Amino acid sequence: MQTIVTKRREGSGGMVGQENARRLGWLGTGRMGAEMARRLLAAGCDLAVYNRSPARAEPLVRLGAKPAGSAAELAARDIVFITVGSSDDLISAVLGRDGLMSGTAGAAPKVLVDCSTVSAEASARVRAEIADRGTALLAAPVMGNPKVVQAGKMTAAVSGPRDAFVIAEPYLNMLGRGVTYVGEGEVARTVKLCHNLFLGVVAQSLAETTILAEKSGISRQAFLACLNKSVMGSLFTGYKTPAYVNLDFEPTFTATLLRKDFDLGLAAAREHEVPMPVAAIVHQLIQSLVGRGYGDADFAALLQQEAESAGLSLVSEHADVPDGLGTSET
Amino acid sequence: MQTIVTKRREGSGGMVGQENARRLGWLGTGRMGAEMARRLLAAGCDLAVYNRSPARAEPLVRLGAKPAGSAAELAARDIVFITVGSSDDLISAVLGRDGLMSGTAGAAPKVLVDCSTVSAEASARVRAEIADRGTALLAAPVMGNPKVVQAGKMTAAVSGPRDAFVIAEPYLNMLGRGVTYVGEGEVARTVKLCHNLFLGVVAQSLAETTILAEKSGISRQAFLACLNKSVMGSLFTGYKTPAYVNLDFEPTFTATLLRKDFDLGLAAAREHEVPMPVAAIVHQLIQSLVGRGYGDADFAALLQQEAESAGLSLVSEHADVPDGLGTSET
Amino acid sequence: MQTIVTKRREGSGGMVGQENARRLGWLGTGRMGAEMARRLLAAGCDLAVYNRSPARAEPLVRLGAKPAGSAAELAARDIVFITVGSSDDLISAVLGRDGLMSGTAGAAPKVLVDCSTVSAEASARVRAEIADRGTALLAAPVMGNPKVVQAGKMTAAVSGPRDAFVIAEPYLNMLGRGVTYVGEGEVARTVKLCHNLFLGVVAQSLAETTILAEKSGISRQAFLACLNKSVMGSLFTGYKTPAYVNLDFEPTFTATLLRKDFDLGLAAAREHEVPMPVAAIVHQLIQSLVGRGYGDADFAALLQQEAESAGLSLVSEHADVPDGLGTSET
Amino acid sequence: MQTIVTKRREGSGGMVGQENARRLGWLGTGRMGAEMARRLLAAGCDLAVYNRSPARAEPLVRLGAKPAGSAAELAARDIVFITVGSSDDLISAVLGRDGLMSGTAGAAPKVLVDCSTVSAEASARVRAEIADRGTALLAAPVMGNPKVVQAGKMTAAVSGPRDAFVIAEPYLNMLGRGVTYVGEGEVARTVKLCHNLFLGVVAQSLAETTILAEKSGISRQAFLACLNKSVMGSLFTGYKTPAYVNLDFEPTFTATLLRKDFDLGLAAAREHEVPMPVAAIVHQLIQSLVGRGYGDADFAALLQQEAESAGLSLVSEHADVPDGLGTSET
Repeated sequence: MQTIVTKRREGSGGMVGQENARRLGWLGTGRMGAEMARRLLAAGCDLAVYNRSPARAEPLVRLGAKPAGSAAELAARDIVFITVGSSDDLISAVLGRDGLMSGTAGAAPKVLVDCSTVSAEASARVRAEIADRGTALLAAPVMGNPKVVQAGKMTAAVSGPRDAFVIAEPYLNMLGRGVTYVGEGEVARTVKLCHNLFLGVVAQSLAETTILAEKSGISRQAFLACLNKSVMGSLFTGYKTPAYVNLDFEPTFTATLLRKDFDLGLAAAREHEVPMPVAAIVHQLIQSLVGRGYGDADFAALLQQEAESAGLSLVSEHADVPDGLGTSET
Repeated sequence: MQTIVTKRREGSGGMVGQENARRLGWLGTGRMGAEMARRLLAAGCDLAVYNRSPARAEPLVRLGAKPAGSAAELAARDIVFITVGSSDDLISAVLGRDGLMSGTAGAAPKVLVDCSTVSAEASARVRAEIADRGTALLAAPVMGNPKVVQAGKMTAAVSGPRDAFVIAEPYLNMLGRGVTYVGEGEVARTVKLCHNLFLGVVAQSLAETTILAEKSGISRQAFLACLNKSVMGSLFTGYKTPAYVNLDFEPTFTATLLRKDFDLGLAAAREHEVPMPVAAIVHQLIQSLVGRGYGDADFAALLQQEAESAGLSLVSEHADVPDGLGTSET
Repeated sequence: MQTIVTKRREGSGGMVGQENARRLGWLGTGRMGAEMARRLLAAGCDLAVYNRSPARAEPLVRLGAKPAGSAAELAARDIVFITVGSSDDLISAVLGRDGLMSGTAGAAPKVLVDCSTVSAEASARVRAEIADRGTALLAAPVMGNPKVVQAGKMTAAVSGPRDAFVIAEPYLNMLGRGVTYVGEGEVARTVKLCHNLFLGVVAQSLAETTILAEKSGISRQAFLACLNKSVMGSLFTGYKTPAYVNLDFEPTFTATLLRKDFDLGLAAAREHEVPMPVAAIVHQLIQSLVGRGYGDADFAALLQQEAESAGLSLVSEHADVPDGLGTSET
Repeated sequence: MQTIVTKRREGSGGMVGQENARRLGWLGTGRMGAEMARRLLAAGCDLAVYNRSPARAEPLVRLGAKPAGSAAELAARDIVFITVGSSDDLISAVLGRDGLMSGTAGAAPKVLVDCSTVSAEASARVRAEIADRGTALLAAPVMGNPKVVQAGKMTAAVSGPRDAFVIAEPYLNMLGRGVTYVGEGEVARTVKLCHNLFLGVVAQSLAETTILAEKSGISRQAFLACLNKSVMGSLFTGYKTPAYVNLDFEPTFTATLLRKDFDLGLAAAREHEVPMPVAAIVHQLIQSLVGRGYGDADFAALLQQEAESAGLSLVSEHADVPDGLGTSET
């Protein structure tokens, strides 16, 4: 994609040839992390990887990554990316007994890039403690699920010291569609929360309008094809289309997890005194979805709940619909 | 754009060489109509045009369109497209004394394609009356404003007899990103309503999250840049970004007009017994926007209302932000 | 109840001795009408009654009412009260071929008091047509169901010419707790709509808080007893308590009927450009209640819907709870 | 009021003659506490009182209360009532250095009745610590403001050990309209939260319907008089009527305080997984009220916000309207 490559070049001050300027590390190669690390390897970067259960790092090693024997071993790299599952995991992976910063040799990366979704509190704590060792933290929560990453379409909001961002930016841009620097400290965490609030609202509105279309005599496939072609179409409405058409509620993100994000997002809104009437209603609808037994289903089950409230029995349309992620950008 | 051209070819059974297979007419060359007609001319179609005030048709004539002296003169064309301002205009333009079907010679187009936003009732009435003359009506309400059309990114839901659709499809596809056949009768009107309900909800959620981001210390420009790069980004979020960043509420679509669409959309939902909790709340928020004096402003003033409710005084960021429509697809 | 009697005396300029000042008529002695007419008879009024099926008027005749052979016969009375089922019934009962005003003798009551719930349009039409005959119409929609009337606790908003109100007021006050003159024309119809919007919102909020209390370990009976004793307690929360505690959803007013009132109430709000965020959400929740199959149940089934959304299976508490209507005021 | 006296007698196993069976204490004689304590004195109870600033206790002493020199001195009473301002105040008043339980003599009341509005956590902590000293805690948060108490119309939900409730009940009933035992532990705190959620929803719905009535041509005084006479009328709608009619937003309870209650109430709903769509919307509307500068006004300013959203300029009706609290029950 010409356009986007161009944009990256402008945005990052020149990417070509930078792929080996820095020695990189990746801590935590679960599903998301592995997809992202794979893109750095594909771009020719010098990457060392570590995962608690080493088996999950092996596919990356086969692609050319250097295996690290411990988190602490990654401390010798210039930039270390982290993708872990929770706030506690972040703290223990970085500050814990055998963590990244536990080495006695005193080596420490210049920049730590945390791509996980963790609390602002955990992030701030790690930031403060590693600053003493001369390491800067970038909060870079990823927007997009593993399939989105694989398709080369993830992005991230990034916050922290701007000079650290300048160092990491070329590599961050290799991970997907490019990233956005949003400010100092933990503000990128808030951007992620805003993103997910928006996503939940869009999912509910999509459910409402799809059911109205269906009760008016229009197939879900036709309605969503049309919406996706319109100015309202997004990668999100595209990749949720198969779920809405064929009622595949196999979770990529459960209703319970989305409720968690709404808990946090609305708590942030309360802290900053921002009324969010629409997000608040969607929060309650997600709570209702959980109460009605769809907590472990994908949040796309909002469609099911909406149909039941409209007195409509849904059946799969068994249609062959694209998810818009079929082709990787690279 | 290879992909989309390919899709069109599959969808329409081969477009190349069809541009002159049918003699086309365009009735009503206001801002929307002119942009659309221009695209048919650019594709090399044989097009006659008529507008009540002929001056507005002249630029098209200079591009090669044949001027028609009256609406009735267009009756000799195979396919006639219509873009008028209201239900009454449609009825008078087609069925009126000097209207398209008023000719005594008995000539009548095979297919009439109404691209206006009119009521299902008006559409059904026209459909019934012209059927007697052997003319099929396609309801093809356009999704997208004139700038979207100009950028080649409009789409339309189309309903009516399927064989009429097969005849018109190649030309409909020339108008933008391709269209979607959604069923018989007037159902395309409902798709348009659903589209606009969705649009209003998205605009409000964008306002809520943008203000939360701003009160958290993130510029609107940074937040929206990030959202636009994410899977949630759409042409719509892109082209509304300048308004949200620079507080340009010069109307492309007023709050009062959006309220009208919500009136109709929620009436359809009531008729079909579909609860729409989120759309209903947004309806009330738009009413409140009108009540607070923003009725003639662009509906993007939802951002202003949200800021006031959050105790925030907005100032323009005077930023140079793209609207994502700069480059036409063709 | 001393207080209220006192108030009446002040409000109506002296009731004692007025019970026979006017000759009264009652048209339509269904359940509501019969309860109300019975109160006039109990107060010693001179009352003639007519009902399409005479059997329903007989109990009143046994209590001393004079049977009328036709609606037209009631035209000779000074004041005629009407309780019919619909707008059409009102029009035919008053203006129809054998209706109240059909007599050739030219007799016409001074005042017609319509206690039905009909549209403002029907009311305005009747008002205009009988004005020519010198009869004034009072719109006096009743607030309260038959049990409330029986308990002597109904009230009504009354609109129309003030001098007609002065004539009818002593008798209106005999019907229950006293009435309120709210203005000219049909405005009493709007008061009734506002009342019912408020009632629906209260019912939903009662459902939400009752279920929160129950999931926190408090019986519905204890919670509602406490609420009823508090400043928030009303006759309404009292007489709905048995339904909420014992899950008796035998309809006094169905969900479908309440939806109708919300349809009309929100249409009035739209006409007058008044945003009603809370009423709008409750409208959608009632729609959902209908969609989930509770359309013919009492609207108290909002409790059931709320419980289901909270993942709670309700069981009757089989408690002996008062409805607060046990004792008539008289 | 015969009925209520009768109820009390049945409920409490006989009140007459019990007014001196127990020696009572009152800790914290602020506005609420003083009004309540006054009622015990009026009933002839043996009451000792303590307040940090003794001046506020003096009026009670003049009515016959025994002045206590310290909180600890109250430990010798059988039942001690507490009304303090916050969770921290409760903890320090009971468990602090000079607190109620700080005496070395080992004296401790049988029952502590906390009538304050404090957190369940603070309440549970006090409960646990005083249990070791043989003192039972009753959580008895009051529903009603000082004027309601003065009018003899307050009530309370009470939770804690049932045998402690049996001891305290006769005195609790003297405080107002009677109280309700709702269960063990801290559940009375949740009842209070539910009560206040309900109150906020009712206030907002009252604002919406009053403004609809006004824009339809009905005075606020007439509309609210009618509503108050109807089955929907409550003490609350009655005593808020002067504020809504005459726009007196002098705070009895500020918007900011109501927001706090909604914060807590919705947190409880989240904890118990109860969706509350209507309460959630009202929460956001209260947040908006604060954001628009009405945080320190009475929450009745919801009417003002609603009017502004409806494009209506309110003016006081300067009407002489009763608040329904004029006459005390006793």
